[in-house]
Amino acid sequence: MSILVVGSVAFDSIETPHGKVDHCLGGAATHFSLAASYFTPVRVIAVVGEDFTAEHEKVMTDRGIDTRGLERAKGLSFHWTGSYVGNLNEAKTLGTDLNVFETFEPKIPDGYKDSEYLFLANIDPVLQARVRSQMPGVKMVCGDTMNYWIADHRENLLKVLRELDVLLINDGEAKMLSGESNLVKAAAKVMEMGPKILVVKHGEYGATAFFCDRSFLGAASVSMPFRAPALPLAEVVDPTGAGDSFAGGFYGYLASQPALTPAVFRTAMFYGGVMGSFAVERFGTERLQSVSRDEIEARFRLFKEISHLE
Amino acid sequence: MSILVVGSVAFDSIETPHGKVDHCLGGAATHFSLAASYFTPVRVIAVVGEDFTAEHEKVMTDRGIDTRGLERAKGLSFHWTGSYVGNLNEAKTLGTDLNVFETFEPKIPDGYKDSEYLFLANIDPVLQARVRSQMPGVKMVCGDTMNYWIADHRENLLKVLRELDVLLINDGEAKMLSGESNLVKAAAKVMEMGPKILVVKHGEYGATAFFCDRSFLGAASVSMPFRAPALPLAEVVDPTGAGDSFAGGFYGYLASQPALTPAVFRTAMFYGGVMGSFAVERFGTERLQSVSRDEIEARFRLFKEISHLE
Repeated sequence: MSILVVGSVAFDSIETPHGKVDHCLGGAATHFSLAASYFTPVRVIAVVGEDFTAEHEKVMTDRGIDTRGLERAKGLSFHWTGSYVGNLNEAKTLGTDLNVFETFEPKIPDGYKDSEYLFLANIDPVLQARVRSQMPGVKMVCGDTMNYWIADHRENLLKVLRELDVLLINDGEAKMLSGESNLVKAAAKVMEMGPKILVVKHGEYGATAFFCDRSFLGAASVSMPFRAPALPLAEVVDPTGAGDSFAGGFYGYLASQPALTPAVFRTAMFYGGVMGSFAVERFGTERLQSVSRDEIEARFRLFKEISHLE
Repeated sequence: MSILVVGSVAFDSIETPHGKVDHCLGGAATHFSLAASYFTPVRVIAVVGEDFTAEHEKVMTDRGIDTRGLERAKGLSFHWTGSYVGNLNEAKTLGTDLNVFETFEPKIPDGYKDSEYLFLANIDPVLQARVRSQMPGVKMVCGDTMNYWIADHRENLLKVLRELDVLLINDGEAKMLSGESNLVKAAAKVMEMGPKILVVKHGEYGATAFFCDRSFLGAASVSMPFRAPALPLAEVVDPTGAGDSFAGGFYGYLASQPALTPAVFRTAMFYGGVMGSFAVERFGTERLQSVSRDEIEARFRLFKEISHLE
């Protein structure tokens, strides 16, 4: 079933210990869409500027991503500059040029209205809420956010959280949002804010899903969390978009399945890790554009092999 | 089969957000022995002072631990003072009184000589080497160390590493020992120093085993690492000894098995996590003294449930 994703389609200038790229295609919605496109149809809503060419769009349409909701505006696309020199685990933001995103008013094309899965990628919660309210009939809503919105736009963010089935954030964000330093307690508090399931991403250590008693997966999943591994990698070329790629693999797999069961949810967590592990192998979206379904399945088996007793 | 362990039997004074205890029974060999005692016979070599009473020894003998190698010396036992206030993930050492450990010369009782498994708990690598050289015929040697020995006693430590089958350390120690910030590269470098298998403990994120091509578990385990989860805990009362308890559960299970296979090794990693998760539930050794075999098996099933797809 189709996923509608709203978020940034952007250009990134990135420096890592492996090199430097200037204005490569990036953005949360881009990474998410590419990762999810291997599992299910994806429709994207974002705004781009005049620097976004037909060639950039082709990266998305070549993967079957529906770009009818990609609005063109006068000016330049959103541009992020960051560095991982000295610390591959955390980006140092050197510049954020919102450009066309400053005045973005997301509009949902009629052809998108029957989307059954909604993903609110990391953007201003006001925009997330606006899209959410225009899609009242979706089967499931999943979202992401970041420390900036948690710290300085809390009220707007809380309105979005109330509407979420699943929230995907990292350890630091879960602790910041809840004010709790213990992850289990943090998860309980975050789920009181709305999300029925919280997926906490631990970077190189994998991810943990927490379920509350309002979880929609059935009783079997309620009591215990679930931990998915990450693949130990000798080379991380560019961590940018790893979290969005995790979200794409996770949600893409969920949306591709006929029913939401605990087993399907667990498998989705593994596919999230799989897509995240591919994303970091090259700069920008390069690896996500070219991975094959066979490679995805082989890596899924690898994730199972490195974490299962038998 | 019997494990011979050499390490500290000590008293700890600990403050955590959950309270404060003064001079409770502790030490790497104590935590290790108690955890391992649920799986296999354990023999301990250490030195204690006049403050170590029959009641303290009973904690060990009640669990069937062989204390014939517990030497009594004039003076006070090793005493560590630490605090986890503000950060449950890392102890702040407030005081280390070596006391009787300053002049300790480990002697191996004749009744210990047929031990087939040797564990070199975290003590001065000179003492580790001395015990190792007196046990030439053991089937397997496993060891632990810490940042202090890595930084300031490197040459002595390197001599011990050459003799190890398995080294258990944490992320920070693996990176410090190797000079590599990437864990996969760090593991490869550490295994070049001697250990055929490196188990890296990630605290609340579990542990990863790395295997080199000299691994004794057979070809199946050579290429890929193995990740074992940790149990997400809402309450960590006292993290002291969690790593030693992991080692005890891990090595105790290994020593209890008739053959060392990849499957046995993986299961041992899970039992390590299980015993570590019990250890932190109470101050000092309290929980490890009283856990039942049924509780251990139930928690093992829980570890499987939170990490396995089916």
